[in-house]
Amino acid sequence: MSDQPLLRSLKEGAAFQGFLLAQEAAYKVSAKGSEYLELKLSDASGDLKAFLWDVRAIEGDMDAVQPDAFLWVKGAVTSYNGRLQMKLDKVRFAADVEVGDFSRFFPVSARPVPDMLAELDALIASVEDPWIRRLLEALFVVDTDLRAAFAQAPAAKSMHHVFLGGLLEHTLSVAAMADRACGHYRALNRDLVQAGVLLHDVGKTAELSYQRSFGYTDAGNLLGHIALETDWINRAVGKIPGFPEDLRLQILHIVLSHHGRLEFGSPVLPKTPEALLVHYLDDLDGKLEVMFRAAQDESDSGSWSPYHRALDRMIYRRRWPKVDPVEK
Amino acid sequence: MSDQPLLRSLKEGAAFQGFLLAQEAAYKVSAKGSEYLELKLSDASGDLKAFLWDVRAIEGDMDAVQPDAFLWVKGAVTSYNGRLQMKLDKVRFAADVEVGDFSRFFPVSARPVPDMLAELDALIASVEDPWIRRLLEALFVVDTDLRAAFAQAPAAKSMHHVFLGGLLEHTLSVAAMADRACGHYRALNRDLVQAGVLLHDVGKTAELSYQRSFGYTDAGNLLGHIALETDWINRAVGKIPGFPEDLRLQILHIVLSHHGRLEFGSPVLPKTPEALLVHYLDDLDGKLEVMFRAAQDESDSGSWSPYHRALDRMIYRRRWPKVDPVEK
Amino acid sequence: MSDQPLLRSLKEGAAFQGFLLAQEAAYKVSAKGSEYLELKLSDASGDLKAFLWDVRAIEGDMDAVQPDAFLWVKGAVTSYNGRLQMKLDKVRFAADVEVGDFSRFFPVSARPVPDMLAELDALIASVEDPWIRRLLEALFVVDTDLRAAFAQAPAAKSMHHVFLGGLLEHTLSVAAMADRACGHYRALNRDLVQAGVLLHDVGKTAELSYQRSFGYTDAGNLLGHIALETDWINRAVGKIPGFPEDLRLQILHIVLSHHGRLEFGSPVLPKTPEALLVHYLDDLDGKLEVMFRAAQDESDSGSWSPYHRALDRMIYRRRWPKVDPVEK
Amino acid sequence: MSDQPLLRSLKEGAAFQGFLLAQEAAYKVSAKGSEYLELKLSDASGDLKAFLWDVRAIEGDMDAVQPDAFLWVKGAVTSYNGRLQMKLDKVRFAADVEVGDFSRFFPVSARPVPDMLAELDALIASVEDPWIRRLLEALFVVDTDLRAAFAQAPAAKSMHHVFLGGLLEHTLSVAAMADRACGHYRALNRDLVQAGVLLHDVGKTAELSYQRSFGYTDAGNLLGHIALETDWINRAVGKIPGFPEDLRLQILHIVLSHHGRLEFGSPVLPKTPEALLVHYLDDLDGKLEVMFRAAQDESDSGSWSPYHRALDRMIYRRRWPKVDPVEK
Amino acid sequence: MSDQPLLRSLKEGAAFQGFLLAQEAAYKVSAKGSEYLELKLSDASGDLKAFLWDVRAIEGDMDAVQPDAFLWVKGAVTSYNGRLQMKLDKVRFAADVEVGDFSRFFPVSARPVPDMLAELDALIASVEDPWIRRLLEALFVVDTDLRAAFAQAPAAKSMHHVFLGGLLEHTLSVAAMADRACGHYRALNRDLVQAGVLLHDVGKTAELSYQRSFGYTDAGNLLGHIALETDWINRAVGKIPGFPEDLRLQILHIVLSHHGRLEFGSPVLPKTPEALLVHYLDDLDGKLEVMFRAAQDESDSGSWSPYHRALDRMIYRRRWPKVDPVEK
Amino acid sequence: MSDQPLLRSLKEGAAFQGFLLAQEAAYKVSAKGSEYLELKLSDASGDLKAFLWDVRAIEGDMDAVQPDAFLWVKGAVTSYNGRLQMKLDKVRFAADVEVGDFSRFFPVSARPVPDMLAELDALIASVEDPWIRRLLEALFVVDTDLRAAFAQAPAAKSMHHVFLGGLLEHTLSVAAMADRACGHYRALNRDLVQAGVLLHDVGKTAELSYQRSFGYTDAGNLLGHIALETDWINRAVGKIPGFPEDLRLQILHIVLSHHGRLEFGSPVLPKTPEALLVHYLDDLDGKLEVMFRAAQDESDSGSWSPYHRALDRMIYRRRWPKVDPVEK
Repeated sequence: MSDQPLLRSLKEGAAFQGFLLAQEAAYKVSAKGSEYLELKLSDASGDLKAFLWDVRAIEGDMDAVQPDAFLWVKGAVTSYNGRLQMKLDKVRFAADVEVGDFSRFFPVSARPVPDMLAELDALIASVEDPWIRRLLEALFVVDTDLRAAFAQAPAAKSMHHVFLGGLLEHTLSVAAMADRACGHYRALNRDLVQAGVLLHDVGKTAELSYQRSFGYTDAGNLLGHIALETDWINRAVGKIPGFPEDLRLQILHIVLSHHGRLEFGSPVLPKTPEALLVHYLDDLDGKLEVMFRAAQDESDSGSWSPYHRALDRMIYRRRWPKVDPVEK
Repeated sequence: MSDQPLLRSLKEGAAFQGFLLAQEAAYKVSAKGSEYLELKLSDASGDLKAFLWDVRAIEGDMDAVQPDAFLWVKGAVTSYNGRLQMKLDKVRFAADVEVGDFSRFFPVSARPVPDMLAELDALIASVEDPWIRRLLEALFVVDTDLRAAFAQAPAAKSMHHVFLGGLLEHTLSVAAMADRACGHYRALNRDLVQAGVLLHDVGKTAELSYQRSFGYTDAGNLLGHIALETDWINRAVGKIPGFPEDLRLQILHIVLSHHGRLEFGSPVLPKTPEALLVHYLDDLDGKLEVMFRAAQDESDSGSWSPYHRALDRMIYRRRWPKVDPVEK
Repeated sequence: MSDQPLLRSLKEGAAFQGFLLAQEAAYKVSAKGSEYLELKLSDASGDLKAFLWDVRAIEGDMDAVQPDAFLWVKGAVTSYNGRLQMKLDKVRFAADVEVGDFSRFFPVSARPVPDMLAELDALIASVEDPWIRRLLEALFVVDTDLRAAFAQAPAAKSMHHVFLGGLLEHTLSVAAMADRACGHYRALNRDLVQAGVLLHDVGKTAELSYQRSFGYTDAGNLLGHIALETDWINRAVGKIPGFPEDLRLQILHIVLSHHGRLEFGSPVLPKTPEALLVHYLDDLDGKLEVMFRAAQDESDSGSWSPYHRALDRMIYRRRWPKVDPVEK
Repeated sequence: MSDQPLLRSLKEGAAFQGFLLAQEAAYKVSAKGSEYLELKLSDASGDLKAFLWDVRAIEGDMDAVQPDAFLWVKGAVTSYNGRLQMKLDKVRFAADVEVGDFSRFFPVSARPVPDMLAELDALIASVEDPWIRRLLEALFVVDTDLRAAFAQAPAAKSMHHVFLGGLLEHTLSVAAMADRACGHYRALNRDLVQAGVLLHDVGKTAELSYQRSFGYTDAGNLLGHIALETDWINRAVGKIPGFPEDLRLQILHIVLSHHGRLEFGSPVLPKTPEALLVHYLDDLDGKLEVMFRAAQDESDSGSWSPYHRALDRMIYRRRWPKVDPVEK
Repeated sequence: MSDQPLLRSLKEGAAFQGFLLAQEAAYKVSAKGSEYLELKLSDASGDLKAFLWDVRAIEGDMDAVQPDAFLWVKGAVTSYNGRLQMKLDKVRFAADVEVGDFSRFFPVSARPVPDMLAELDALIASVEDPWIRRLLEALFVVDTDLRAAFAQAPAAKSMHHVFLGGLLEHTLSVAAMADRACGHYRALNRDLVQAGVLLHDVGKTAELSYQRSFGYTDAGNLLGHIALETDWINRAVGKIPGFPEDLRLQILHIVLSHHGRLEFGSPVLPKTPEALLVHYLDDLDGKLEVMFRAAQDESDSGSWSPYHRALDRMIYRRRWPKVDPVEK
Repeated sequence: MSDQPLLRSLKEGAAFQGFLLAQEAAYKVSAKGSEYLELKLSDASGDLKAFLWDVRAIEGDMDAVQPDAFLWVKGAVTSYNGRLQMKLDKVRFAADVEVGDFSRFFPVSARPVPDMLAELDALIASVEDPWIRRLLEALFVVDTDLRAAFAQAPAAKSMHHVFLGGLLEHTLSVAAMADRACGHYRALNRDLVQAGVLLHDVGKTAELSYQRSFGYTDAGNLLGHIALETDWINRAVGKIPGFPEDLRLQILHIVLSHHGRLEFGSPVLPKTPEALLVHYLDDLDGKLEVMFRAAQDESDSGSWSPYHRALDRMIYRRRWPKVDPVEK
């Protein structure tokens, strides 16, 4: 689809053909009892309503035209009361393999992946403790599959950093804050903290599915990301002869306890300062991302965001402006 | 200590010397300002109050005379208002190595360990599924250290089956009930259920310390038994080439979810019938053991047990008698 | 309606007239501003969408055409994009009395009611304790109205065993498991357990309404099934001279405590082994039924069931296959 | 014990012999290893510490000398640093039958029982609804055993109105407030409210034991007062031919729901205005009694009461003084 | 809009033009792909469905036609299957300033505002304590803006007394009940109670917005009414020289604690009898209003109200009839 | 008491006379029935057990000798089995005014108060926003009473930073972390954050009493520190003409919401990024202080701290050692 235009670039009257992701798809019955298809189609640039008035123009299996499916469509852009929509002539289900590079259909991190990977590598290199550094290298450098997945996965299905690269972006943000915290609380073992930060969510690469829509894998639903990453850490440690047992326990403890409360899925409470810190900074970073996004949402101009279910509150969107230092 | 008499067998006037476990130990001050030592000493047969009126008769480190320590004592049994107690002449701390076989100091399962191990082996042999059987053999037969620990550990620190061999006794009881349940609910996969039953608490062999008093190990406090046994299962599976991934997920899921609720330390809820069954039968078996023990406690003759904190209730001790079938 | 065809047997083009249950009924406005009626009509074999394009063809009270009402309809089966639907010519509300035997409109237990009643009778006959047996006979044999209702009621409005005969099927399933449990935990009083099992939900015959749709009666909403059946047990006991008071207390205790937690509507916690067992087996049976149903649902082919609100989880539908014993 | 002096009237040097209730009783070991008995003895007027230095002076079973037992004691009042205590020469366990009228050993309501019963009768007589009036008469007038128990029972074991006559005093207080509330909320059915008020705690006469110390009966622990009184109401209704079923449901509903929340032991929530009112006024009256008692406790002169576990708070004891109307 | 007819008075065929409040407003697409506008329009007398089939007939900004907006409409009343609706020819957004007096669009208290204000003044005048009376006068008499707002605000956004004047009506109802309670519990300081009652919700005048639809202000969302009124009381107290500090604390304590539980937004629990009383009577009054409204709802004829989310229950609507005293 | 030696400096045989704080004080009865006084006496350097064998040697009111009282004592240091204790000859209650400077009796911050005040001033001076800076200056610089109290108060009664100067030390630690967080999350308004940090606990100066022992004031118990500081902020804002209303709301919002959850006493949830940050950093700082203190407690040498009730867990005391950078 490399030569297909982005939805955001389309003008009224333009013809369009290509692949789009169906965010919504529903068969509806008109007043005359005839069935039509109403779609919401998207690429990474945005989305449009689209209508196919004669469902006989669907090629192949009608039932495959569903939310989360890729569709090949052909039609034209029309304008209705100032809003663009698409009137379709042809629709068919498109297999993943036809579509090629999915990244053009999904939201992605604002930070380029290579930059983030370089920051990850620098962070690992900065670890003084040789055991911890070797463990991190084994997982994030030597294991190229995991490295690739870590760079692509979102941080969550719906809560925060819900975009490709979100897991890495979130992890690096927590890591940067953790370094600042270690500068302040000098009794913290910074290397142990960073081990916990880098590993705390790495299991999400296998807990979540993010190839087409964002969801949970079978392993994610049955085990959860904490059990997944615990296993990976144990395997990696097993390949490092002489790895200290107390260190293994303390790293696993941070990972197991990082949700902070049993009812949030951590089987143990944080019982070391490093575990406590990782829990707080992880939680804070995720919630701040939600709040900043709510404040910056351009589709909304009110003082208050809509009710956010995961946070169980609305966000106040008005920001008290910073004072320019020179004005002081 | 093989030739030392059991506490329960002592009569008034008998001399005693040997090792006993200090369940309580406190230095107290008499009205004259002199310090004395008040002890509660036990072996597996029972316990006695004991007094050392002159603390200068303590050999070695006074501060080592603490609850949970073994002591070597010398004294005589006296009777006071019809109750036996011990008047001591000498007390000293005893290192574990002197004491030898600890099992004479602790409550033990009413079932002989060899019988229980035979039942375990028969259960494993009855598993039809070759993958599951190999996994169970690897852990409970091939790994002789784990097998030995599994036969010795208690099932909990204070909740239920708090005696040596209690873990195995509890596990086999759940397994027997599970077989009965599989006979009733025919859609259950019996082999998968038994895998879950046998593995659900095996991590307690490393979560709990039970060499002297019953407590938690560092690994137990930092990781919990669920994370410990999950690791062991993963390692054992890793050594069985071709072990099916979906089976691994389903077994781990039973283990991870067997506490039934997140706030009880399971990071996931039971999502398969087998996981649900193991959770219910495990929970039921532990609580029934508490109730039956309360009803049979000979030191108590009232209708109600004392308040049981873990169950948050008192137990009704009066049993409605069974009718002899022939009377019908 | 004895000669009316089942919905599942209808073919395109067939004419239909007869009674059907309206599961959904809504007046909608077409683009032209004309009102039409959209229905989902069902009998025990399935359901179909149906449309009446001219609402003036409704006979009698338009407002009586509502969900949960029986309707008499006349129309023809049409096919639209491969799906059958019904185009109606006439619709009218039908009083219950016209419809006759409701059982053709509702899901029913897969087990024949006479078989289940025979099993119930055998179970009661197996009770050795004469007091308990007389109590159960009084309620389930002598009281023919209760016996009939017990054979017809569903086990719940929406949670589990939601079909006619479900209450009896659920009760017998718990009873069979309870017998197995009593074979294992020999200290249990089996007759007392069976009294608890058979009586624990009998109040649902008056708590639920299940003549047309499944709901709650006034007594069900105001008192709940536990208070209802407690009353019935007290009345029955009152007619058995010399019934032992402690036995009455223990039976009522099982019934009152069988929800296991105060927040689930039990005014007391289970404080006897028998009460604990009934609570666990009842809860387990209901949840397993939900899980097995989810796994067997043919309308769904994914690995996961939809989110189940009462269980607060999705169910994993993939079953690890049993190994044929001979393959071992 | 009619001629035995009250504890509060004793002076230093006085001899004493008679029955007293042991609130505390403990055997202790002195510095010399001799055992002595330390008691706290009470009658309704107060309590004193007492010591028996030679336990051989105990007549009969030493182990029967326990908290909550009546004891017959002989000794003399001594003064120690300005506080009175009792030095005993003889102590023996006393059977209930010896002691006679228990009421001299327990706190009692400040209101005379005959006055309270007259108020109860007037309240019942004021009920206009003939069905409700007959029901109340059946329980509180015709059933003379229940009437007597209702006049003697405390309202709770430890929460509020913990004194003989407390149940009736509390009930009448709620009833008086309920009449005031019905005067304000005119849509309330006052007779229905009063039925709920008078019956809401009547089961406490059988839930609590209050012959010697305040505790729970077996029936109380196994069923709870709500189930007990529900049974009694059903029995009484059963003897009134033609009693309206809807009225029975509404009265039982008030009783069943009066704890207001499931986790407080009500199997249903209040769903009628009358049930809601009874719940609130009952709860308010009990908590106010606790607060007023805390404020008036003469043994305490601080601004704050001790922490009250049932209320989970301390009570502020300082009262803002009322202004005399004439000063205005 | 003084000469515009009320919706309830309109007959079929009548022409209408004037201002109405849009409770619902949605653009929909017809089967032909043409867009139409579907509205639900209301004034204080009721509401009607309305349709504008050609959206080009909208004057001005289409996007301003939203729920909660006032609209100027022109059209005619039609009848469809016995129900009235409106077919519109013209629609435009109307600014608040055009509409004038909003009160004709909203539900209002059944009690006339002047009557309620007179009752408020009498209540304040009845306060004997000069400090309390001066405080109440400062806020409710001297501060005429607050007095006006207090007479206009609803008591809540959606819970109870959701109509103009509802805050005052609710407050006076609680005050009347409080006087009755002080007559019964004589140890209560009635003036302190009334201070708490009158002030407990006064911050809702600034927490809620009720000029057009009922919602929360920014201050309401950020601070809540308790913090708002606490500030006002402090300011008013600050202007009364010599106001006793202990009285200030006790009044503020009632206000701060009146939600009764921390999880309901009170930062402290009620720790004085007066605070406890105000909490209970406030809560009771709000819930009773909901229940009485449910029972009197003429649009509903069933025994049960719809599920009420704030109360988490359905309300039983059937009232047991009062007996006429003379019939006794 | 300037010339009185510190307890930690005393040797066996030393005579002592002076003021000490009674941490424990109990009258006990010896085996002979004679009463003696057992004390635990402290100054800021530590504590000692002390005994007065003849209570007639108490001067003045015996009942004034209570925990939390200052006592004047005279006696000598004795050694008993290697532990120092004090044998007293004279004891009397000492009024506060005699004792003079209390600070020698309490734990104090390890940071000198002048250093901390200088850091506070620098922080305020660094605020760019003129409104915020003026508000902070009004409270912390102009109000010298508040400034003095802010430098003396502990941060809590028992949770964390329980020492004189603890409130300021905690506040500055949060402020330093907040600056680091603002450097990372650039969208945060740093001045608004610092306003929230400096003000979030300032009410503790009036909520807590810390003159002798650490407890709550009446205002603290009745209103809580959040309501206290909210009032002070409102007063200070009221004296700054033109202070922006939105800024006032946002600052108060941070203060009101900083406990993060309603059940922890915040009447609103954090709804701005700044409020969220202050909540997290405040909570983190308090809990880390507890954990670091547990790890550094020299009186304890085990791997695990005692159970910490406020954190509901034990703390792992073993620290994984940092690697010296040069070793890398």
